[in-house]
Amino acid sequence: MKSFDLSLYLVLDPVLCADIGMVETARAAFAGGATIVQLRDKDTSTAAMIETGLALKQMLAGSNARLIVNDNVEAAIAIGADGLHIGQEDMDAHEARRMIGPDMILGLSVETEALASAIDAGIVDYAGVGPVFATQTKPDHKQPIGLDGLAGIVKLCPVPTVAIGGLKAEHTAAVLAAGADGLAVVSAICGTPDPAAATVLIAQAIREARK
Amino acid sequence: MKSFDLSLYLVLDPVLCADIGMVETARAAFAGGATIVQLRDKDTSTAAMIETGLALKQMLAGSNARLIVNDNVEAAIAIGADGLHIGQEDMDAHEARRMIGPDMILGLSVETEALASAIDAGIVDYAGVGPVFATQTKPDHKQPIGLDGLAGIVKLCPVPTVAIGGLKAEHTAAVLAAGADGLAVVSAICGTPDPAAATVLIAQAIREARK
Repeated sequence: MKSFDLSLYLVLDPVLCADIGMVETARAAFAGGATIVQLRDKDTSTAAMIETGLALKQMLAGSNARLIVNDNVEAAIAIGADGLHIGQEDMDAHEARRMIGPDMILGLSVETEALASAIDAGIVDYAGVGPVFATQTKPDHKQPIGLDGLAGIVKLCPVPTVAIGGLKAEHTAAVLAAGADGLAVVSAICGTPDPAAATVLIAQAIREARK
Repeated sequence: MKSFDLSLYLVLDPVLCADIGMVETARAAFAGGATIVQLRDKDTSTAAMIETGLALKQMLAGSNARLIVNDNVEAAIAIGADGLHIGQEDMDAHEARRMIGPDMILGLSVETEALASAIDAGIVDYAGVGPVFATQTKPDHKQPIGLDGLAGIVKLCPVPTVAIGGLKAEHTAAVLAAGADGLAVVSAICGTPDPAAATVLIAQAIREARK
């Protein structure tokens, strides 16, 4: 069993974060209450991903926030990341687990009830469920599932879940009420004028919703 | 499924924290990387516990750190705590779950392999396993189980685990190697000259051990 907190899961977007950078965005977000950061950059080299990941990891030293790397197994291992996140098309979850070993957190994107039911809880540690709403930050995203779709999928997941896709602070209560353990956000934090304040807003909404 | 991080679990001791207070100790610990705080005071009134708990909760606003209340269901509910922790002698776990409802985190102390095997993962969310070593902060503690005992018990727990009992920063690697998801500490933080620095030391040791 692994123990980690999906409450406020930041997915870094290299384009949106261009102004202050991904590391500074993550630093602000952790100061504001983010619990996990995912490094996602489909358009960069493994070497560049490792460089950013190592900087993120150094920034996290002395905190218990977790660093997850999207899709790139080689980068995840080189960085010594806490976890790897994969999509259904990236690779098979069993193959991913074999490559990263038993200790690294493995997250898997699921978009349908059938995929949720197919999760092997002995292999996968959490599910990213979405897209809840349409989003600009992932142009190739699937058909949005909506809040009702989220609730239906979450119910079938045998692992903790984080909702993703177009989520803002104002969706917090509805997302948690749908049964998700947390929110993954991109543009709600990345590229905002004050990423720390934007994160605090979501963290407060989470705490409020859990009352 | 609930998602929370047992990595660095602070149990507040009212006597050790007397100098700067429990709220200030917790504030320093969260700044240093603590993920959960437990309010434990067997010698105070429910009213006093609620007062301290509400102050802790206010301090936590805008973070995703969790507040767990030891043993006192009435206080846990009045505070709106994130969780309740009970010992084997406090009450039955099913009874506790019935009283706190489905959403609150429920932690249970286990001291033996038999108790670990008996955990109902549908009711209990995590296990506190120990005491690993003898400790002064809980005078009525059971026979220490040692690191080998910890490993044996953790293996049988169907829920995430946090080790407890006389743990210091230098035990971090061994405790995580034994399979526990985190360390619960008392005197390693409470009453130390610089609780934030003491917490950072443990957080760094955790990150180091997870490499």
